[in-house]
Amino acid sequence: MERPICFYSDYGYEDDFAGTCRAVIACIAPSVRVIDVTHGLPERDVLAGSVVLRNTLPYMPERAVHLAVVDPGVGGPRPPIALRTGGDRLFVGPGNGLLVRAADADGGVAEAFVLSNDNLWLRPLSATFHGRDVFAPVAAHLAAGLPLDAVGRAVDPDGLERIAMPEPRLLDDGLVATAVLVDRYGNVALNIRGSNLETVRLRGAVEVVSSSERHLAHVARTFTSVRPGDVVILVDSYGQMAVAVNGGSAAEAFGLRAGDEVRLRRVGASEA
Amino acid sequence: MERPICFYSDYGYEDDFAGTCRAVIACIAPSVRVIDVTHGLPERDVLAGSVVLRNTLPYMPERAVHLAVVDPGVGGPRPPIALRTGGDRLFVGPGNGLLVRAADADGGVAEAFVLSNDNLWLRPLSATFHGRDVFAPVAAHLAAGLPLDAVGRAVDPDGLERIAMPEPRLLDDGLVATAVLVDRYGNVALNIRGSNLETVRLRGAVEVVSSSERHLAHVARTFTSVRPGDVVILVDSYGQMAVAVNGGSAAEAFGLRAGDEVRLRRVGASEA
Amino acid sequence: MERPICFYSDYGYEDDFAGTCRAVIACIAPSVRVIDVTHGLPERDVLAGSVVLRNTLPYMPERAVHLAVVDPGVGGPRPPIALRTGGDRLFVGPGNGLLVRAADADGGVAEAFVLSNDNLWLRPLSATFHGRDVFAPVAAHLAAGLPLDAVGRAVDPDGLERIAMPEPRLLDDGLVATAVLVDRYGNVALNIRGSNLETVRLRGAVEVVSSSERHLAHVARTFTSVRPGDVVILVDSYGQMAVAVNGGSAAEAFGLRAGDEVRLRRVGASEA
Repeated sequence: MERPICFYSDYGYEDDFAGTCRAVIACIAPSVRVIDVTHGLPERDVLAGSVVLRNTLPYMPERAVHLAVVDPGVGGPRPPIALRTGGDRLFVGPGNGLLVRAADADGGVAEAFVLSNDNLWLRPLSATFHGRDVFAPVAAHLAAGLPLDAVGRAVDPDGLERIAMPEPRLLDDGLVATAVLVDRYGNVALNIRGSNLETVRLRGAVEVVSSSERHLAHVARTFTSVRPGDVVILVDSYGQMAVAVNGGSAAEAFGLRAGDEVRLRRVGASEA
Repeated sequence: MERPICFYSDYGYEDDFAGTCRAVIACIAPSVRVIDVTHGLPERDVLAGSVVLRNTLPYMPERAVHLAVVDPGVGGPRPPIALRTGGDRLFVGPGNGLLVRAADADGGVAEAFVLSNDNLWLRPLSATFHGRDVFAPVAAHLAAGLPLDAVGRAVDPDGLERIAMPEPRLLDDGLVATAVLVDRYGNVALNIRGSNLETVRLRGAVEVVSSSERHLAHVARTFTSVRPGDVVILVDSYGQMAVAVNGGSAAEAFGLRAGDEVRLRRVGASEA
Repeated sequence: MERPICFYSDYGYEDDFAGTCRAVIACIAPSVRVIDVTHGLPERDVLAGSVVLRNTLPYMPERAVHLAVVDPGVGGPRPPIALRTGGDRLFVGPGNGLLVRAADADGGVAEAFVLSNDNLWLRPLSATFHGRDVFAPVAAHLAAGLPLDAVGRAVDPDGLERIAMPEPRLLDDGLVATAVLVDRYGNVALNIRGSNLETVRLRGAVEVVSSSERHLAHVARTFTSVRPGDVVILVDSYGQMAVAVNGGSAAEAFGLRAGDEVRLRRVGASEA
């Protein structure tokens, strides 16, 4: 039985890259459904891509093939891989840590393969576009029903490259977090799960301090819980703590980009 | 019988938002066709979104479910709604005025419902992403054949929030219009229907004045009716009066953004 | 039998243009598969569009209808056309040179027609959006099985407008090339086929000189063949010579845009 393909990449929309991969899939598996989840993953940011894959996993169809490409090392030593999860999802993409965070959340990596069966690839193989020449064709064959062990040679899941999420640092009066994702509205997701809001003892009024700005914020439920232009700290729709501005851009207000640190200080607590 | 879904949003393409909604639809109604009309609606600009919905309506398949999300008040008091038009189209989205302009153009709102049947929603319900958790699932169920009255409680169509289009102001020597939409080429659509060109007595040479610039323009049929780099006032493909530059960007030339005013002055008429 | 449609345009993603064309196709030919290859073709750049059509051709499904729109002269004298190639692909779009480069690579133009059968078009016909009103409907009818000669009147393929690719200029110590395409990563494709690398005698160390910058580069296989931040000259995934920066943007590093010239100088060769 066919599997749908959920396609993620940092290919953007200016170029043909994602569309050409879609055409490659259509040539190999014309009746397979492809869901373009996003091709706007932050360029070359493997950690951010892995977070988006993880975040969106629960919303994707069961038994999907997750084709994901953020591959700054294309053509270099990172292996092309395919995984099966405990939840019977398949993942295809570069073995640079992009895929494993999501797989771990779906029952873990049950089987892992390096894509060494080059009969499945396009010819000639380019050095710089394995999305088109390797990952899309392999994903298409898997979606059409090819057994996973036909893609190459089995490897030990424990040996797969993983990317650590930076840890927030707890301080006496709050914490230092890292911006993980910035969305189109300028909302800034942090490396703290909303379920940890109580653990990190953030509630009520909080001062948010970036390298260049500081503003008072309130921990609340949604954007409109604070006045227009005010800063709100909320649990976003993927369960991450996020800094937002009602009707505005927190990324702009604080000069924040993915990877930047931001300090959250309980108001009234003494300066550390 | 299934209905196609025409999906509009201001989610952009950098994030997974539109793609995740598409995945949610695919989970609930795998065989329903989804047409992504655009996810590039101007951020949080409900008026502009309502105009795009209205403009594109005649080109959409009959009996479609129009799923539309521009929702700066998500999680706040604005109700989530669904409408049936006199022309048997369905609209699903926030009750902030986004949907009604298009519905009015399709035979008016025949029935209106607040989405109160939370059995149709995803769990857990987020506070900030009702596109994924409420609107997409409801649209998917409707596209798959769910009767409209199953989505919630009926409300009086006359009580729905509407957004007024700003009116152009007629002057002795021309008029003051408002920029409603700016497209990728920098063409600036105004709040005047092309069918009113004669009423507003604009023809031949016209001076176009923004807050920072003034240029001579000609009322003509298409971009290439004037020389490269020259300003043209034309009736655009959606019947709106628009200011354009042949081979260039009127938005840049005049420093115009949606919401800005622009004065059109008949040349030869005395300065008011 | 139906043909798939491969849709290319410079419509971008901010506006409804591509999506509305897709809706028009869905109305006329609901079961036809549409592959959006890209709508991010460089604005109004007919040469760049023709190169992308040519590059991606081998990856598109057989017998496809290639619907392509980069049409700065819309509403002017350029004819709307449809072509059949020797390889039995169809092309629909403006007769401004956009289509012919790809058709030439697929067995040449076997038949050419001007779209004069206005029964196939949408009404009213706009002056500025022939993608929606002419090209998309004609492509949809062709994809659904309409014979090509029903679209209008046959014309001599030899009379079709073509766009010449600028030629690189060979110098004693290297050459002057032109940037043809810049991708999202800032990789700059040049007007030289990789298969000519030996002819142009570029290997090893090369100095790359733009109007504002000069940097040492190495001719190599992929991005990671050089150190992070270093410049590499490689044969890209479409067989074009390209200038790239490992982990960075060559377009930024050299201030290059499509159409700009760049000089490649063999290191050790005497200054010309």
